[in-house]
Formats: sequence, structure tokens, C-alpha cells
Amino acid sequence: MPTVKTSIATSDPHSITVRGRDLVTELLGRYTYTEMVYFLTCGKLPNPQQTKVLDACLVTLMEHGWTQIAILTRVMLDSVPDQPQVAMGAGLMAVSSVFAGTMEGCSKILSTGIKRGSDLDAYCAEVVVEHIASKVPVPGFGHRLHKPDDPRTPRLFEIAREAGVVGQYIDLLERLGRAVDSGYRKHLTINATGAIGALLLEIGVPLSAMRGVAVVSRAGGLLGHVVEERETHAAREIWRLTRENIPYENPTTD
Amino acid sequence: MPTVKTSIATSDPHSITVRGRDLVTELLGRYTYTEMVYFLTCGKLPNPQQTKVLDACLVTLMEHGWTQIAILTRVMLDSVPDQPQVAMGAGLMAVSSVFAGTMEGCSKILSTGIKRGSDLDAYCAEVVVEHIASKVPVPGFGHRLHKPDDPRTPRLFEIAREAGVVGQYIDLLERLGRAVDSGYRKHLTINATGAIGALLLEIGVPLSAMRGVAVVSRAGGLLGHVVEERETHAAREIWRLTRENIPYENPTTD
Amino acid sequence: MPTVKTSIATSDPHSITVRGRDLVTELLGRYTYTEMVYFLTCGKLPNPQQTKVLDACLVTLMEHGWTQIAILTRVMLDSVPDQPQVAMGAGLMAVSSVFAGTMEGCSKILSTGIKRGSDLDAYCAEVVVEHIASKVPVPGFGHRLHKPDDPRTPRLFEIAREAGVVGQYIDLLERLGRAVDSGYRKHLTINATGAIGALLLEIGVPLSAMRGVAVVSRAGGLLGHVVEERETHAAREIWRLTRENIPYENPTTD
Amino acid sequence: MPTVKTSIATSDPHSITVRGRDLVTELLGRYTYTEMVYFLTCGKLPNPQQTKVLDACLVTLMEHGWTQIAILTRVMLDSVPDQPQVAMGAGLMAVSSVFAGTMEGCSKILSTGIKRGSDLDAYCAEVVVEHIASKVPVPGFGHRLHKPDDPRTPRLFEIAREAGVVGQYIDLLERLGRAVDSGYRKHLTINATGAIGALLLEIGVPLSAMRGVAVVSRAGGLLGHVVEERETHAAREIWRLTRENIPYENPTTD
Repeated sequence: MPTVKTSIATSDPHSITVRGRDLVTELLGRYTYTEMVYFLTCGKLPNPQQTKVLDACLVTLMEHGWTQIAILTRVMLDSVPDQPQVAMGAGLMAVSSVFAGTMEGCSKILSTGIKRGSDLDAYCAEVVVEHIASKVPVPGFGHRLHKPDDPRTPRLFEIAREAGVVGQYIDLLERLGRAVDSGYRKHLTINATGAIGALLLEIGVPLSAMRGVAVVSRAGGLLGHVVEERETHAAREIWRLTRENIPYENPTTD
Repeated sequence: MPTVKTSIATSDPHSITVRGRDLVTELLGRYTYTEMVYFLTCGKLPNPQQTKVLDACLVTLMEHGWTQIAILTRVMLDSVPDQPQVAMGAGLMAVSSVFAGTMEGCSKILSTGIKRGSDLDAYCAEVVVEHIASKVPVPGFGHRLHKPDDPRTPRLFEIAREAGVVGQYIDLLERLGRAVDSGYRKHLTINATGAIGALLLEIGVPLSAMRGVAVVSRAGGLLGHVVEERETHAAREIWRLTRENIPYENPTTD
Repeated sequence: MPTVKTSIATSDPHSITVRGRDLVTELLGRYTYTEMVYFLTCGKLPNPQQTKVLDACLVTLMEHGWTQIAILTRVMLDSVPDQPQVAMGAGLMAVSSVFAGTMEGCSKILSTGIKRGSDLDAYCAEVVVEHIASKVPVPGFGHRLHKPDDPRTPRLFEIAREAGVVGQYIDLLERLGRAVDSGYRKHLTINATGAIGALLLEIGVPLSAMRGVAVVSRAGGLLGHVVEERETHAAREIWRLTRENIPYENPTTD
Repeated sequence: MPTVKTSIATSDPHSITVRGRDLVTELLGRYTYTEMVYFLTCGKLPNPQQTKVLDACLVTLMEHGWTQIAILTRVMLDSVPDQPQVAMGAGLMAVSSVFAGTMEGCSKILSTGIKRGSDLDAYCAEVVVEHIASKVPVPGFGHRLHKPDDPRTPRLFEIAREAGVVGQYIDLLERLGRAVDSGYRKHLTINATGAIGALLLEIGVPLSAMRGVAVVSRAGGLLGHVVEERETHAAREIWRLTRENIPYENPTTD
């Protein structure tokens, strides 16, 4: 059996090595956190265009006000006030296929389309037909709040194009958007996670890292919630609201 | 009772507002992820010096090879392979007072010392005497592996001084280091989390955010572990090693 | 919009009401924990036969030595030694469709079959063909270690029959077992989680509670691991084994 | 270095051994879940008196209506609807020193007192004086809702005495209660977790297992919440209530 190995990092008393580079002499003070996220995810250091796009993706998903993710962090912090990392961890576990973590599904569709190559519009039509048939929403489309259009999407496309990416995944996502509108006979916005799925593909982020990028992004947002919660104790208000507004009623069938 | 409020973020169909700024038109594409972490944590946008120091702190704690944090993420991913955010969240919950999250304790000592002001060396001696008496290690000192000295610490101080911080917390930490060596009658290194505690105080990060900065940092590192684990399945090897090397023995007292 | 309600429990200064019964005067000291699990899950108190079967199911899944679930709890406890509930919670999160939580899938197949009614053997053959075609293992069959047969399964069937359950789900699972052996052209054991899926259906536990029963069961097992870990610190050994046996190798493609 | 071992469980293809007993032939169908929890925690099978007391402790903490613990489970399930074990695990992580997990602190006080032996009332007075001086509440006393008295406490004492326990820890807790009332110059109830701390000591449960017993107990309660949540989706209402009642306000100091 071949030995399992790791190529991420190692250390000895005098040094730490990260993917073949000395942390202290080659990385620290030379690269930003965003560049290091790219390095650890893609296995090479990014060029400025890739950094620009990754920063935009990371900033986009940091905050969206009162989400289930923020509620989880706030309420957990109320229970373990000295363990903010448990509160942040709990919130991040909810960056799922339901909330904020849907770029994965959208990226898979885009990646498969580009690999297949020919006649992208036919491919898009096919994808839409399949999703309508199986009653599964096309990932990356529609938004609970942002109607008719998610304001983040055109700005993300603009940033990517200004940075000079090739644009094939963005182009395919826009084609898919037209196919969606036509297939569902109504306009469904390309949402921010869909757009981010396309942008991350443009800069070479692997599919296996897609949802994790959202986790990193939201970690920064939750840090802000920890700081505020320690002052305002909103979790106690969430508890009170729940107790007072979701009443108990004796069960009917015992 | 005054209403509990939040000042972090809100949204409507056409916009998202983050701490008073429009996400799409004022923040996205203009600020890096690191700058946004500072903005959400400290309530104002950083100057380049503060960004430089925060980036160094975030990069320092991203990776340290095989840690309990990485093991948790790998093993959890083996159980919920489609939920990488649960695996990352589980790992981040271990960024605790035992591992990687000790900057909080060190920062409190430094912050208290600077507030008290006069005769810093007497304060340091006092801190050391108290810790020796209560048999609690001084937070920010010593390292399991990095002996005699943590190689990250001098580089972090260098980056901060090049960036032009005032340096009062770094100075106090160095004084404390001398008091520690003298009190324990042996050399204990200022470790990386101790140094980061000082640097974050220099740039105005509140005590309530200290450990959370380590969580954000390590989130980036764990993303790399998710990508590798999906290829190598090291968690199965960890399982096998555990089964084969920690044997079962019938209990003696039933 | 109709108000959302809860029928689980409420309290006032002088009493706690659980599903319409006074906790202190009607439940406490009268019912066992297992009976209460049934009460909260199924909405009525169990008869002795149902209690016997539920106890058997709960006892079966409590322990299986070194599992990923136990490793997670041990390693997390090493990081947050004063928060055993975080360690147990982390372990329980791994009671998934990969490990210990597969009764859900098996139960769905059994439940659908009984609802359809006629010609159960044809139904079983159909289920096997579909799973072979989609290359998805039939849930409830096969076991990494227990070959050719899971020793827990016949004992669980025996307990249920002695308790006097109707036996229709057990019968269907045994038919399915014959169809599996025939379809795959080799013997695959009905494993313990498959058997438990059938038993829980026999006593009226809803599908939505199936995996949660495994979580309750394993919680008891993990309590034992917490007690032992606080004495032996096996997590440190798991860490050492990982560091020493999964070596770092510089990445080849940077 | 002596090898680290485990005495909890092991397995081979044909059997599973739990603390020296064959699971299938010696345990399954013979012992209840509660008896097995005792076995795994205390290392020996309980007598009927110990089982009665442990069942009462486990039943007491299963449910208390809308708690932060229940809110966490409900909201997490909304994010990962197919992973109920993640939702239950998240809720259980909040069984902390703030909520439901305080028996640990109370038990330590009782255990120390009995070990010291002589003049229990002087010991109680001392404990109260220390807690008043350090402004830390005496663990096991007072309750947010149950005033003047927690209705569960006298019932728990009654069950334990009927079961025939020695009663020394219960007696000491009652003495401590009188010292608390006298020291604080007002009546503070012995709460349910305090009473459970005493009962668990009476039946020989080790201090290291105390909080974990609450985790096992509440796991059963959360299973009921999972079943109900999958029908009512109360988490969406909690989210709506939070969004609509904790308003955003622009920060004043940017």
C-alpha cells in the first residue's frame, strides 16, 4: 500500500514550511491573506488579476445582515461565552447548499459545459429542461430577497472583466441565465453565489474548494458578529422573541 | 427596555449595506478581504500600515501542518463528505485556549499593563510572580516544538516596526519576556500567538476579537486541507493508525 | 399566516409541561429515559414491547470501539478540555449516512414497500436492480468488518419477535436480503443499522426520527469516551501517530 | 513510554466486546439504555436503585421548551435539512456551564465537602463566603424562571430517597442551601442541575461524567425537536422574528 502523504505544511524547531516555502523568510510579510488562500487552494501563488477576483469573491459573501448563520453564532456565543471559536464554527457549519454555499452546484454545471465544448446554448437548454423535469432549482439562480436582480452579480462580472479574465465561464453563466428565463417563462436573477462560482472557475479554483471559499469569506463576517454580540447580547432577545411568539399548544394526539 | 439593534449589515431588494456603506458601489472591488475584516472588527477602514500588520497576523496562523485542528477537519470530512463546511467548522472549534487561540490571554496582560502606565518592569515582574504562584503558564510564552525560539516572532515584530506602529505593546511584551526568563530561571520563547496579541493591540483590534482573528486565519488553512483530503483520504489512514496502535484491553475493575 | 406553534414543552415558575403532561407529577420517577425518548418522538407513551425493542436498538449502536466518531470526540476534548459537550457534539455530527446513520435509507425502502403492498418479492428485486444500475449500495447491507454476517442482526430480530411485534418490516428486510444476494451474486449481510431501521418501523418510530435515534444511542457511548479520555489522553497519541506516519512531501507542481 | 490503551470496546468480524462483555450474547436485550449508560460511565452494571436514580436524572433534563439549545438545533436543521445529526450536535454543544450543564460545579463542591468530612455547616458557610467575595454565583442555585423554587428538585430528592440511596450528598446540598439563603440574605432555590449533581454523586457517577449526562439527556429531547421541526419549520419564523425585531442602525463611529 502506498503511504499517504501531505503536501501542505510541516515544521521543525526552527522553521515552518508551507507548500515548499519557508513561512518566515519567503511568505510572511510578502503575501496577503487572500494570496495565501489562493496558494493553499490552488497550489501556486496568484497573479494580481487572480488576487483581485478572489478578493472580490471573498468580500461579497462576508455579510448579509441577519442570516441563519449569524443567528447560530450569536445564540451559541450566549451558551459558551468564552469560546468564540465554537460560536463561529457553529455558524460556519450552516454555509450549506441551502444558504451561501450553492456556488458548488453552479460551478459544476459551468465546468461540465466548458469541457463538453460545442454548442453551449444547446447545453444550457438541456440543463434547464432537466432541472424543470426534476423540480430542482438551477443552482446559482433566484434569490429570496433580491428581485428582480441581485445587485452584486453585475459588479462581480465587471470586476472580473476589468481584471482581464478570459471570461468563458461568465459568458456561459449569462447564456444559462437566458435559457433559465426562457425555460421557466419568468426572469430569475443570476445570484451572487452563481456569479462567484463562475469567477472562481475563471481564476482556476478547483471545484472541491468552492464551498470552502464561502466558509473563509463568512468567517470574517462572523468575527464582526462576535464583537457586537459581546456588547449587545442580541441572542437573549432572539430567545425572548422565540418564547413569546412561537407558543406552546397541547398536542392533540397522545 | 431599549430595543436591541445591530450595526453590522442590512439589505433590501436592491442593495446590501455593510456598516453604513453600500456593498456593491462603495466596498466591492475597492477593498481587500483583509481590509474588510478590519472594517467589520474595528468599525473603520484600516490605513495601509494596519492592513500590512493584520495581513501578517492572518498569514502566520494559517498553517502548522498536522495539528488537532487539521485532524478534526479531515476526520469529519470522511463522515460528511458533501458538507465541507461542517468539517471546516469542526476544525475551527478547536482554535481554543489550548491551541492557536491563546493571543487573548496575552493581550489582556499587555492591555492592562499599558492602561496602568507607570513602571512597566514592576508590572511584568508581578505578572510572572502571580503565574508562578498559581501554576498557570504565562499566555503567549513557550512552544511545544519551537525551542529555544519561535521563528515567527522576530519576523512579526520586524514587519510591525517596518509598518511604523507605535510599538508600546511590542515593547511591553519584550519586557515581559525578560521577566519570564528571569522568574522561571530558564528561557521561554515569546510564541507566535503572543506576538500576534501584541501586534493586534498595536493596530487597535479589540480584545473581544482576538481569538476570532485566529479563527479567520485558520479557516484559510483548513480550506487547503479540504482540497487535499478529497484526493488523499488521509482520514482513513488516521483511523487505521488509531485502531492498530491504541489497543483494547479488558477493564480490570468491573 | 397561521401562527407557528410547538407541542413539545412549556414551563412557568411552578411547573414544566412536556407534551401535555406535568413533568414533575406525571412523568419523573414513573418512566424510564427510553420510554421518554419514545414519548417525545412518537407522541405517545410506549407499551412494554415497544420499550423493549427501542432499548435494544439504542443499546446496539452505543459502542463500536475506535470509530471516526470516537476519534472526533477524543481529539476535540484535547482542544476544549472544559467543554465535554462540544467534544460529544462534534462526535455526534459524524453519525451520518457514511457511519452509523444509514437506517434512514433502509427504512425508506421498507416503508415504501409495505405501503405499496402487493408482491413484495417483485418490489425487492426492483430495488436491487435500481441500486445496481445507479451503483449506489443498498442501504442497510454489507459491513466493512462484520463478514460474512453482522452478529447483531439475528439477535435484534430475535428480540423483536420475542417482544411480539407484527414483523412485516423484518420479513420484508429478509426478503430484500435474499434479493440482494441474488442480484449481486454474493452474500451481503443485513447490517445492524438495516435491522434497526426495520425494528424502529415495527414500533412506529417515524422516518424523520430514524437517524436521530442513532445520535441518542451514540451519545451514551461517547460519554464513556469522555470519561476515559480525561484519564488516558489518547488524543495526544492519535496526534503523534498522525504526525509520524503521514509524512510531509514537498508539492511537485507549484 | 507505556502504550496508551482503551478499555471501552473492540470488535472482530464475528463479535463486538464492550468493557469485557459480548454485546450480542451478554448485553443486548438484557440491559436497558440507561443501565448501559451507567455501565459505560461507571465501569460496572448498576443495581436497580442506581438505575432508578439515573433514569430520573436523565428524564429531568430532556425538555424545557424553547431553550437556546432547541433554537440552535432548529436553526441548524434549516441549513442542513438532510443532516439531523449536525443539528442535534450543534444544540448539544450549548449544554454548557451557562445552560443545563452546571451540575459539574455543584458536584465538585459537594464532593470536596464529603471528602473533608468534619463540620459540614462550617464548610458550607465558607463556600458561600468565597462565592460572594468573588461575585461568582454558587453553582446549582437560583433559576431564571423557577422562583421561588424549582419544582423538580424536591421530586428528585424524593425519588432518590425512595430508591434508598445513602443521602449524604443530598444532605450536604440541603445544608448548602440553608447557608446560601443566609449568606445572600434571600432565598435561592436549589435548581434541578444542582439536585442532579447530588443524585449522580449518590450513585457513584464520576465528576468527569457529570456534564455529559446532561448531554445524553438532552439528546433525547432534541430528537423530538427534529421531528417537529421537519413539520413546522419554526426556524424560518425565528429568522423572520429576528430580522423584523432587531433592526439595523447605521453605526455612529466610522
